[in-house]
Amino acid sequence: MQFNKVLDDVKLYEAGKPIELVVREYGVDEKDIIKLASNENPYGTSPKVTKKIQDIAKNMFMYPDDSMFELKEALANKFNVQSSNIIVGSGSDQVIEFAIHAKCNKNSKLLMSNITFAMYEIYGKQTGATIIRTKDDEHNLEQFSKLYKEHKPDMVFLCLPNNPLGECLDTKDVYEFLEEVDKETLVVVDGAYQEYAAFKDEKKKIVVDELISKFPNVIYLGTFSKAYALGGMRVGYGIAKKQIIQNLYKLRAPFNITTLSLAAAIEALKDEEFVIKCIDENFKEMKRYEEFALDKGFSFIKSYTNFITLKLEDKFISSEVAQNLLQRGIIVRDLTSYGVNAIRITIGSNEQNTRVFKQLEEVLKNLK
Amino acid sequence: MQFNKVLDDVKLYEAGKPIELVVREYGVDEKDIIKLASNENPYGTSPKVTKKIQDIAKNMFMYPDDSMFELKEALANKFNVQSSNIIVGSGSDQVIEFAIHAKCNKNSKLLMSNITFAMYEIYGKQTGATIIRTKDDEHNLEQFSKLYKEHKPDMVFLCLPNNPLGECLDTKDVYEFLEEVDKETLVVVDGAYQEYAAFKDEKKKIVVDELISKFPNVIYLGTFSKAYALGGMRVGYGIAKKQIIQNLYKLRAPFNITTLSLAAAIEALKDEEFVIKCIDENFKEMKRYEEFALDKGFSFIKSYTNFITLKLEDKFISSEVAQNLLQRGIIVRDLTSYGVNAIRITIGSNEQNTRVFKQLEEVLKNLK
Repeated sequence: MQFNKVLDDVKLYEAGKPIELVVREYGVDEKDIIKLASNENPYGTSPKVTKKIQDIAKNMFMYPDDSMFELKEALANKFNVQSSNIIVGSGSDQVIEFAIHAKCNKNSKLLMSNITFAMYEIYGKQTGATIIRTKDDEHNLEQFSKLYKEHKPDMVFLCLPNNPLGECLDTKDVYEFLEEVDKETLVVVDGAYQEYAAFKDEKKKIVVDELISKFPNVIYLGTFSKAYALGGMRVGYGIAKKQIIQNLYKLRAPFNITTLSLAAAIEALKDEEFVIKCIDENFKEMKRYEEFALDKGFSFIKSYTNFITLKLEDKFISSEVAQNLLQRGIIVRDLTSYGVNAIRITIGSNEQNTRVFKQLEEVLKNLK
Repeated sequence: MQFNKVLDDVKLYEAGKPIELVVREYGVDEKDIIKLASNENPYGTSPKVTKKIQDIAKNMFMYPDDSMFELKEALANKFNVQSSNIIVGSGSDQVIEFAIHAKCNKNSKLLMSNITFAMYEIYGKQTGATIIRTKDDEHNLEQFSKLYKEHKPDMVFLCLPNNPLGECLDTKDVYEFLEEVDKETLVVVDGAYQEYAAFKDEKKKIVVDELISKFPNVIYLGTFSKAYALGGMRVGYGIAKKQIIQNLYKLRAPFNITTLSLAAAIEALKDEEFVIKCIDENFKEMKRYEEFALDKGFSFIKSYTNFITLKLEDKFISSEVAQNLLQRGIIVRDLTSYGVNAIRITIGSNEQNTRVFKQLEEVLKNLK
């Protein structure tokens, strides 16, 4: 059967390997597996959120509140915007999907950094749009600016901080670039890891209400999957001018967020203390990775997130390192498919990281 | 900002009003509200499923198993197909979305019954496709056949049994019609309420592996939202030949089902006893609605689902009846927007239905 031709060119996203799969495929005992491949919060879900879900689990038979009244009010309050400025997606992923599908078609162009979140391209290809990438791996605004003028793309993607590399542009530089961009171009400012960047360095912090009031063509994305520790519950959001949100809403299916996910997100917003504690721990533990890298002679990208990207230079092959770690029950992300010889490791808990260093040390010794 | 022109013509789905909204807007006490507007299972979630979710709630921070290995194995086993014949969506809704977006564009035509599930049209319009409807409200295969030959649509939708009317075609008649359909036409057989129809009348039962092996151009849809009592968890599925599934997969975002939803669906499949008990109760209670309707001189559509559609003829105006019930805390679905003067009521529990009859009786008296 024939389907739309544009699909021929669509590649599937490669998800971090789940623990169940490593148990099945490598016969490693489940309790010995450490998954540091998907930038989940290693401190687990907030106990307050877990309690809430246990209390209301029996309500699963009821459709969710499709207006998402309570969650949108809570987000509006947090970001100092109106509910009408917000759209909630099944992960911020889904808001990216809405934005691209609402704005683009096969005549469109999308501008993004050379190495950035894979879904921008995948959703773009679904519409048949052309992908334009800067030359440098990390975000380079001069290159963005030059390519913007050359191609006049319909959408621009800034991942702040950037997944999977971890770097983050300064907000003032981003503002300067945004001044140059035509108001018909939809700019996605992807803040999936913003909580980490804002904590580490004030210069990286994005003030969302300021951003969207200065730039009516920008949509800001946030997620509950990282700092808020709800990766499994699929809740993210987009914040923009009402006119943008209304158009994205036309592609939102009813009930796109589950009853329990809505409740979990609402509860998670009430426990900011937990979030701050997790982020604080994250950067303490990250120092250990930086020291490990220096010790082994790897370079690393200064990270404003909950992961670190180790460049293996010409010393090791990243796919081999990742595969060997996998056999030892440690799941990390090999970045070969992104075109770099590097591994991305989520910063785990203190105990997890100690085990990672030990295993990685042995793997490197064996591969030498 | 300009978005894709096709969106101008897209209408939003009108969800059944949630209880929270009735509390907010009408000041009715939450415990006095009966929601019979979204065909949820009035017997609640299976206690075994609730227990499972409570046990694993703390795992919410982990991304779901994107391969959905366990759920797909369980479904493959239930339907006697392979995992590769299955795609899981955030409700069967999302599988409809995948199918329409994979197959259609602005040159496409979609054939469906005059009154049927609203999302077929909404997703169709998102691609700019043209909607063709039969003349009769209920499914009429002669009309389908005639319009099929006339328009050669890219997709055909058969809702078996039909939402929001409740009628159901005989499977042998469906097979006869499918014989006439070109193998390049994708036919959606929507079995969201099949468990009810198959229980009530063997002639309505669809044997899925037989269906897709006889007709390689058919995709069968099922859901956990109705008989399996997981409306809030958003899990549905499509079953078809591998080639169709592979194309739909290109539009599936990673992690489209939450960690808890996957677990709930897997557990729900283990408790078929609960499902059968709910369906049995459903049809016992439906008899009371049929008697009520006869008593009041309304006609009703013989229903193979967990709801009943009462036609108010020229006696009452459905929007008024629904609005008056709402003020009394009883939420039903007014079908005015579908072009019929009727209300659709989900068959509630015995106690709920008794209250509905009492309130409805009073409303009708007041409106006379």
